[in-house]
Amino acid sequence: MKVTLAQVAELVGGVLRGDGALVIEGAARLSEATSKDISFLGNPKYESQMKSTQAGALLVPPGTDTHGRPAVELKNPPYGWAKILELLDKDLRDRPRPGVHPSAVVAPTAVLGEGVSVGPCAVIEDRVVIGAGTVVQAHGFIGHDARIGRDCFFHPRVTIRERVVVGDRCIVQPGAVIGCDGFGFTFHQGRHYKVPQVGTVELGDDVEIQANTTIDRAAVGATKIGRGTKIDNLVQIAHNVEIGEDCLIVALTGVAGSAKLGRYVTLAAQVGVAGHLTIGDQVQVGGKAGVTGDVKSGEVLWGLPAHPLKDEMKTIAAARRLPRLMDDLKAIKKKLGL
Amino acid sequence: MKVTLAQVAELVGGVLRGDGALVIEGAARLSEATSKDISFLGNPKYESQMKSTQAGALLVPPGTDTHGRPAVELKNPPYGWAKILELLDKDLRDRPRPGVHPSAVVAPTAVLGEGVSVGPCAVIEDRVVIGAGTVVQAHGFIGHDARIGRDCFFHPRVTIRERVVVGDRCIVQPGAVIGCDGFGFTFHQGRHYKVPQVGTVELGDDVEIQANTTIDRAAVGATKIGRGTKIDNLVQIAHNVEIGEDCLIVALTGVAGSAKLGRYVTLAAQVGVAGHLTIGDQVQVGGKAGVTGDVKSGEVLWGLPAHPLKDEMKTIAAARRLPRLMDDLKAIKKKLGL
Amino acid sequence: MKVTLAQVAELVGGVLRGDGALVIEGAARLSEATSKDISFLGNPKYESQMKSTQAGALLVPPGTDTHGRPAVELKNPPYGWAKILELLDKDLRDRPRPGVHPSAVVAPTAVLGEGVSVGPCAVIEDRVVIGAGTVVQAHGFIGHDARIGRDCFFHPRVTIRERVVVGDRCIVQPGAVIGCDGFGFTFHQGRHYKVPQVGTVELGDDVEIQANTTIDRAAVGATKIGRGTKIDNLVQIAHNVEIGEDCLIVALTGVAGSAKLGRYVTLAAQVGVAGHLTIGDQVQVGGKAGVTGDVKSGEVLWGLPAHPLKDEMKTIAAARRLPRLMDDLKAIKKKLGL
Repeated sequence: MKVTLAQVAELVGGVLRGDGALVIEGAARLSEATSKDISFLGNPKYESQMKSTQAGALLVPPGTDTHGRPAVELKNPPYGWAKILELLDKDLRDRPRPGVHPSAVVAPTAVLGEGVSVGPCAVIEDRVVIGAGTVVQAHGFIGHDARIGRDCFFHPRVTIRERVVVGDRCIVQPGAVIGCDGFGFTFHQGRHYKVPQVGTVELGDDVEIQANTTIDRAAVGATKIGRGTKIDNLVQIAHNVEIGEDCLIVALTGVAGSAKLGRYVTLAAQVGVAGHLTIGDQVQVGGKAGVTGDVKSGEVLWGLPAHPLKDEMKTIAAARRLPRLMDDLKAIKKKLGL
Repeated sequence: MKVTLAQVAELVGGVLRGDGALVIEGAARLSEATSKDISFLGNPKYESQMKSTQAGALLVPPGTDTHGRPAVELKNPPYGWAKILELLDKDLRDRPRPGVHPSAVVAPTAVLGEGVSVGPCAVIEDRVVIGAGTVVQAHGFIGHDARIGRDCFFHPRVTIRERVVVGDRCIVQPGAVIGCDGFGFTFHQGRHYKVPQVGTVELGDDVEIQANTTIDRAAVGATKIGRGTKIDNLVQIAHNVEIGEDCLIVALTGVAGSAKLGRYVTLAAQVGVAGHLTIGDQVQVGGKAGVTGDVKSGEVLWGLPAHPLKDEMKTIAAARRLPRLMDDLKAIKKKLGL
Repeated sequence: MKVTLAQVAELVGGVLRGDGALVIEGAARLSEATSKDISFLGNPKYESQMKSTQAGALLVPPGTDTHGRPAVELKNPPYGWAKILELLDKDLRDRPRPGVHPSAVVAPTAVLGEGVSVGPCAVIEDRVVIGAGTVVQAHGFIGHDARIGRDCFFHPRVTIRERVVVGDRCIVQPGAVIGCDGFGFTFHQGRHYKVPQVGTVELGDDVEIQANTTIDRAAVGATKIGRGTKIDNLVQIAHNVEIGEDCLIVALTGVAGSAKLGRYVTLAAQVGVAGHLTIGDQVQVGGKAGVTGDVKSGEVLWGLPAHPLKDEMKTIAAARRLPRLMDDLKAIKKKLGL
């Protein structure tokens, strides 16, 4: 990477402040940047580092004091940061070669679009269709009759079972499993009798599934993940769940069967959502909360069972004063002769 | 799939109501079914859809109002549903071919039973014994000296480490790891010194292990999963745990070392069970609970630490009235001059 | 394994009590040991089994009543136990053969040290450097430019993405993913825009990563795991986290982005640590706790949000007396005419 600060300003759509000819060769956090690096202020928590940083240039919100350092001002520095890291990423990652590695096993009935790359020891089963430009890295598995869109990037060791449908530009990290059986049993003659899971999974465009996350196929019909939704590591999405567009679901969260989430829902880490619930749009659930009832759009929840965040904060504060309150009560009862 | 409703009644052991010659070509949920589909009423929550559904036929409990639609009545509709989905499943899944795929690596000392199927890039190490009819799909790994029963189905990317013993008819989903090292260390000279995990894992017959779940091998002896027990995605079973028969363990749950569970135990999602505990038969633990002491048979628990569900419901209700109670107390203290 | 009790005493640095010529052929838990086995007392909970055990010899703390059985006394029996299990482990595990299995795919630019073993279907990309004596078992994946130390043991199906750095003597269990993308997005024009994760992961010497755990690469810079730290199954370590030396992080725990942990920190199972926090040395966090603020060295925490364990115990005890307290309050209000 070698760009001038003027080029950076153009790339990120920001306003240049200082020497546009300054050459930037890297990007680093404020505390680690050198004079050849650009850095950024993304979290007010780190504003105190603006003075001490050794960064050669900065991406900052308009009006930030950069202590004389050249900068590019823009409303959302993290977006500019993302654009710069895209340049770095191109330098740092080997580009997968189009074509099928000789150690891969691709069924003759599979149809691969132009420029598709299939890495070492990957396995593509019968009648799979993969759109142009998609990359399946080493040890990838795509089950029969799956349909994968264009320009997806499947990191090593992705498992996509039979008949799953994936949109365009989806990114899947290592170890993720899409289309595993839902946990469906019925009690019969004293045993748990397996209900075959004959449905599938549908991922919209621009979905990202992070490492070792599992998305169960539907019992019948489809488990659906809406366009633009991003799911972090080690998340469990159960059968027949439907998640709307542009949601964020953070690590170690579980969403139980047939739950429906709206758009722009955020579930923080280690959240649980019970089965068969309906969650509205723009709902936010705090870390470790357990949602046990339907939720209206716009609500912000915490606790177990989850209720409005404000109420939970009050409940926690009161609960922690409880031991003292017990003493008060004893004194009152004594005074009243109760 | 193409069956008459009379054939369905016979298959599921139910009572035909209406035209037995009606041809069924598919199965779908009430809200998605068409006139060629059969659907079912498995959860009273969906009874309101009995009128609006477009399903051509229904599986229902005796006496259900089907609004004139042909139906099969049976006590447990989900069991009938499972039998129908078995037919669909046969249509929808490619049957693995018996034999060893040329890209698989099978040790000459491994013994494969009749009709065993080993998929692409699978690896079977020395002295492994696999019973007749078992399927090991793509990228499966079975470590040396493991003994696998008959008619098991290992989906792609299953890892079974050395010396593990698996019963008959077990199903393992992608990414599950059986026989990984337990988390055993002892503090020695200021460091955590590894205790080698030389034991193994024993799965009984008809056990199912879902995707990306991990079952640690014992330090010595065996971690044991009883016949018919089903374990959902992303569950952690630690070393030397012993789980009885016919248990259900739901996603993201962790059972710590040397805990013993009885029969018919249900652990809901994200439950934690501390180490060295004894849990009786038919115990039920609610989602996100943390079990920190021994539990008698038949108990129903919730909370952290887990205690009887009824008590936990009362505690939660009271805790959420706490902020108001604080106000009451203030008023009382004022009145009493305290 | 075939050793005399005198040899055991020497191996573990303990004091022989009884017949040093006694031959030991195995090791087992107190309840499962036979007369040819040695067993140990590691947890006082099992002291009652000292009488009934059939073990031929015992490892015990000095002064333990072994009911006349020959024994080796040492201060920390679990350490002696570990040394004995090392002998058993050598007997029980096939030693990987040095060299590259013909089905593995190793880039010509990769540099493998002396005695390195690369198992079936493993994939090693360009410019990877692997130190002497390291084992990469079946289905291992090591991305381009990764640098792996000496004498590491990577069990089957380990994923190490590009540019990750691993120290000496690290052990990684199946399904672990090291260097997957951090969960980084910025909100731009109504969508979640991906922030490329161009950093890496650095594991110190003697680190162990258990099965299906995920360690995200940094956005920029490195996610760091200190020497001697052990991380259990199904743990999520987010981007730019820095964990000190000799920590223990138990199953299903999540540590959010940019959190910093000191040395000798213990996080019990299913703990959550929020992002951008600083946790001191020797901090202990109880199971299922959620840490939401900075923590000073030496603190012992529990609860959500986590606070001192003692306070949490009092809060729980008080909360569970709440329903009765509510009745008291009603009586008081009635008496006071409130």
